Amino acid sequence: MDIKQIIEQITADKKEAGGIKQVYYAACGGSYGAFYPAKTFLEKEAKDIKVGLYNSNEFVHNTPKAFGENSVLVVASHKGNTPETVKAAELGKKAGVPVIALTWIEDSPITEYADYVVKYSFGENKDIAGEKTVQALMTAVEILKQTEGYENYDKFMDGVSRIDRIVKQACKHVANRALTFARKHKDDSVIYTMASGAGYGAAYMESICIFMEMQWINSASIHSGEYFHGPFEITDAEIPFVIQVSEGSTRALDERALSFLNRYAKRVEVLDAKDLGLSTIDSSVVDYFNHSLFNNVYPVYNQALAVEREHPLTTRRYMWKVEY
Amino acid sequence: MDIKQIIEQITADKKEAGGIKQVYYAACGGSYGAFYPAKTFLEKEAKDIKVGLYNSNEFVHNTPKAFGENSVLVVASHKGNTPETVKAAELGKKAGVPVIALTWIEDSPITEYADYVVKYSFGENKDIAGEKTVQALMTAVEILKQTEGYENYDKFMDGVSRIDRIVKQACKHVANRALTFARKHKDDSVIYTMASGAGYGAAYMESICIFMEMQWINSASIHSGEYFHGPFEITDAEIPFVIQVSEGSTRALDERALSFLNRYAKRVEVLDAKDLGLSTIDSSVVDYFNHSLFNNVYPVYNQALAVEREHPLTTRRYMWKVEY
Repeated sequence: MDIKQIIEQITADKKEAGGIKQVYYAACGGSYGAFYPAKTFLEKEAKDIKVGLYNSNEFVHNTPKAFGENSVLVVASHKGNTPETVKAAELGKKAGVPVIALTWIEDSPITEYADYVVKYSFGENKDIAGEKTVQALMTAVEILKQTEGYENYDKFMDGVSRIDRIVKQACKHVANRALTFARKHKDDSVIYTMASGAGYGAAYMESICIFMEMQWINSASIHSGEYFHGPFEITDAEIPFVIQVSEGSTRALDERALSFLNRYAKRVEVLDAKDLGLSTIDSSVVDYFNHSLFNNVYPVYNQALAVEREHPLTTRRYMWKVEY
Repeated sequence: MDIKQIIEQITADKKEAGGIKQVYYAACGGSYGAFYPAKTFLEKEAKDIKVGLYNSNEFVHNTPKAFGENSVLVVASHKGNTPETVKAAELGKKAGVPVIALTWIEDSPITEYADYVVKYSFGENKDIAGEKTVQALMTAVEILKQTEGYENYDKFMDGVSRIDRIVKQACKHVANRALTFARKHKDDSVIYTMASGAGYGAAYMESICIFMEMQWINSASIHSGEYFHGPFEITDAEIPFVIQVSEGSTRALDERALSFLNRYAKRVEVLDAKDLGLSTIDSSVVDYFNHSLFNNVYPVYNQALAVEREHPLTTRRYMWKVEY
């Protein structure tokens, strides 16, 4: 069953009860970040459907009261065994809420509590359109289309058909820059990321999953709009920033932050979605593809940084090693 | 007009159009953080009402499509002159959406676009129940009560009546700890905050408005549930954390993070809502008072830190000084 069919099935099942009214996304870390575009999509595009994005453990302990007969729960766990996310899925199953689980490993613990399992693409040369982020987005897009309607559906699907080629081209485009970045930042103890709009989740992931988790570099993901209301005071000639200049609605926010950085910071790496080819996607839907672009361009930098720092991306001191 | 009356008026005005269906909170920096409990309240307690919390500039550039005849916009600006927030209010006014402006200065630019102005308490010996955070929460509580109904309304109001005394007692309680904290952290270049649930906004504010803005110390506010999915790898004997152990639904998340910190970190400052007296508020509503407690206890630490570091909290290099 593809996502369109899954949502058709859920919509049919809920018809008598009043249809889908709330959509909850629950995941942890990188999977949480991957849900950001889906959450932003429904927040921006839907008139009546409520959407919530939760860390799985927060969802389990702080379950919204609306969670019930008109809800859909979408969870994601890469290997299908993240304990908090498995619990969130179990909560959904027990409440009779349809659970869609996005995972890379189909035969994993989370599938026990999933009504629908979506296996996403992963690894070298993966199809970007089949990735977790786009699959999650598709749940949001199909839900909107099949309930309130979504006028830009065809344009969105056209974007899906283009994203793989754009990303692969962009990765080649940044290869040399990434090597330079790695050399310049190999001794840094802090690197900030900055972003806005539907692509913010990619900055969050780079900050928590790469810099903090895989490189033990201090980091925070700063919202480009919030930057001017506190964080910008940290800016000086030494502090490094990686800024996502997005394509779409919030580009002006990123450009404003970049303009400030160009005046007062000296160590700024710019990932510009326009420069990286995202503008061929229609402007009515392009916002939602920033994440896939940035999130897949970062690994080129990450590989280079890991080599330069002699700190492999697989290095951990706690994760999977100690009890927690 | 008090907030109850404001919401009664808006509800009456919207009756024919179908009532209030979406509530948007838009602000920047500290005011954005102050809206976090209100957003969390409606996200958790409301069945049908959509709620969104936006940085003002994001709201202006990325306005949700539902924003219109069934919406309410709540904005906050301390001096009423934050340009992005004034623009957000203007957007609301032009769209015919009722705008409630929370500000400390009643005769300020934002009031031009506000249908309702709420002046909140601020400064030495302010009434905590009259503060921006609680006033914002009251908009959420009244909207829920007057639309879907809110069964814990009386308990919530009882909490409002208690919070001032709890906070003032808690501030005395941490006075000595704050001095010790300041001495121990005066030379730190990074300090993390950690939190979960409705009180997370207080950790965000401490991180961006105090450590980054007012002390030029690197920082990030880590969600206690997300900590184990990336950020915890940064933990070692040297990195300092300030953790909010909340009272209410997500306490288990904070306790789990604290337990990990107690094993692998050596420099941890614990703000425990139980220890600070929040438990006298009913458990059905206590979640929403964590922010007011932590957000008002932090200043005791901040004052001490500023003195110890000889870096007054008023020091800025960019804010209000250069064009941005």
